[in-house]
Amino acid sequence: MPLSEFDIISRFFAQPDLSFAVPGIDQGIGDDAAILSVPDDQVVTASMDVLVADVHFPAGADAAKIGQRALAVNLSDLAAMGSKPWCFTLGLIIPEADAQWLQNLASGLSVLAQRYQCPLVGGDISRGPLSLSIQVQGLNHRDKLIRRAGAQPGDLILVTGTLGDGAFGLASVTNEPVQIKQIKGHPLKFDPQNDAQATHFNAAYWAPEPPVNFAERIAGRVSAGLDISDGLLGDLAHILQASAVGARIELAKLPYSSHAQAVSDPTSCELAALYGGDDYELCLTANPSELEGLNSLAEQSGLSLTVIGEIVAELGLQCIDVDGETVDHSPSSYQHFKR
Amino acid sequence: MPLSEFDIISRFFAQPDLSFAVPGIDQGIGDDAAILSVPDDQVVTASMDVLVADVHFPAGADAAKIGQRALAVNLSDLAAMGSKPWCFTLGLIIPEADAQWLQNLASGLSVLAQRYQCPLVGGDISRGPLSLSIQVQGLNHRDKLIRRAGAQPGDLILVTGTLGDGAFGLASVTNEPVQIKQIKGHPLKFDPQNDAQATHFNAAYWAPEPPVNFAERIAGRVSAGLDISDGLLGDLAHILQASAVGARIELAKLPYSSHAQAVSDPTSCELAALYGGDDYELCLTANPSELEGLNSLAEQSGLSLTVIGEIVAELGLQCIDVDGETVDHSPSSYQHFKR
Repeated sequence: MPLSEFDIISRFFAQPDLSFAVPGIDQGIGDDAAILSVPDDQVVTASMDVLVADVHFPAGADAAKIGQRALAVNLSDLAAMGSKPWCFTLGLIIPEADAQWLQNLASGLSVLAQRYQCPLVGGDISRGPLSLSIQVQGLNHRDKLIRRAGAQPGDLILVTGTLGDGAFGLASVTNEPVQIKQIKGHPLKFDPQNDAQATHFNAAYWAPEPPVNFAERIAGRVSAGLDISDGLLGDLAHILQASAVGARIELAKLPYSSHAQAVSDPTSCELAALYGGDDYELCLTANPSELEGLNSLAEQSGLSLTVIGEIVAELGLQCIDVDGETVDHSPSSYQHFKR
Repeated sequence: MPLSEFDIISRFFAQPDLSFAVPGIDQGIGDDAAILSVPDDQVVTASMDVLVADVHFPAGADAAKIGQRALAVNLSDLAAMGSKPWCFTLGLIIPEADAQWLQNLASGLSVLAQRYQCPLVGGDISRGPLSLSIQVQGLNHRDKLIRRAGAQPGDLILVTGTLGDGAFGLASVTNEPVQIKQIKGHPLKFDPQNDAQATHFNAAYWAPEPPVNFAERIAGRVSAGLDISDGLLGDLAHILQASAVGARIELAKLPYSSHAQAVSDPTSCELAALYGGDDYELCLTANPSELEGLNSLAEQSGLSLTVIGEIVAELGLQCIDVDGETVDHSPSSYQHFKR
């Protein structure tokens, strides 16, 4: 007998490892809507990300991995706001109701749901071509939000973790050379030599670890910020536009993982960081007076934090190479990139 | 040149007729998350509905109709809670970025967004097989919510509007006989004779009008309630389960539109109401002392409100025919239904 929508919800999703009680959730799964009771001094942040089979993940992948990645990329948007994760909803479209697949999906979702105490509180299920739409809700104190607007000339530009692993991670999952679309399909060098490297990049893709707790702690200390999901250049451009400022980036300061440097070459690492996407790290701007405090919080969170440039008054984004020369990184001119 | 995600958002969605300012929305489209500031004495309700092409609507339909229906069915969930609509997000998956189609979709969404001052505040767009995931957020005073739990023996059971038009509406759109799946594909009689009837049922499908304002006004006066989206029997069963009570329904009291009665026969009308779905009316329970006040509020809203039965202590749902006989409406026994 096929599983009905109600069967699916009760067997796989309305379960204590995924749909548990947390403060403020007066009603989770089980009525026509979730009921969320927000503490007086706080605001709700809400962000929706859609993941489509064979666009955002291989359709045949392990559902547990799909679930973990789906919630991770959504939590990255909450990290981008400096929000404390609160709860999420799931709009699930599946071609068929396969019990094992659904169980795996639920277990994949539960990994970060439990880590961040961010339960599933509702959603919808339909038959159709595989996709997941997740909306995450977060909480912030009213005056402690990380927004795209607010960067000031003289602010430092910082990034968490390392950049480029997301692009190489995609290569490790698809087994295809990563093409950087903004620069007309230039392929990145990606040549893993051992299992440790393969494992690293597989995890970079399937189990990104957005710096959620760190983000929550620095809200109020940074002038602007967002998560790096589309490549540093495109994402930083959003901060510059929202803040009506420019930026000067020192390319030699971009942080790469030792694995990225081992499997690739310097040009590919740089392109992966600038254009690759899927890194789910943070790009932040902050007054230099905040640097010591931010470094201390990063250290407490076990994160690296790297100054890569500064905000300037003149609009536009300048990339400076190791010799102090300006590199033209506008996508259409990439063919002239030094190599 | 193809439209990018950012082009699509700015040209069609971040527009004043869809993404307008309302109180409490500190940030709509344009950051990594929307920022929602909830008044102190209120709670947020949140509900997500997924609509998939060729499952919930014909893929080739006018995008304006798709947009209007998509927001309407979501607002019906807020009506089910007695919530005031506040804002919504859209997860849109489209096979291609067709400017005219997107413009039409946005205009369809804007109809109810404007009527209920419920703007689009965020979302995501991806390429893929056509579907829409919408999450609506509503507001309620803390002590004025309509929930599924709370019905008491002796309470009246009421429905707004008329039932069955949703099922006939589906027939008018698909041009196929409506099969009631719960009763093994029994086809409903549906034989429209004139343009007025065709127009009525087309609108019932594409432009349902959930009683949003009425629902908001009666929250606190009814003991339980939900919207009728899957057919009265299935939906009422949710109230009975959540409230741990039973119900006795008088079939002769079920309200049908004059159009439904003109295009069909009494048995088909009854089946459409009980099993058909897509009506987006409310099923409510209330202490008899509230009836006069509810009728008065319904009249002010231009709605009909019909008592169709009562809540009883004995579990289960009894359907009583015009002669006072119990009719077995359990799906598996439908083949014995009187006709």
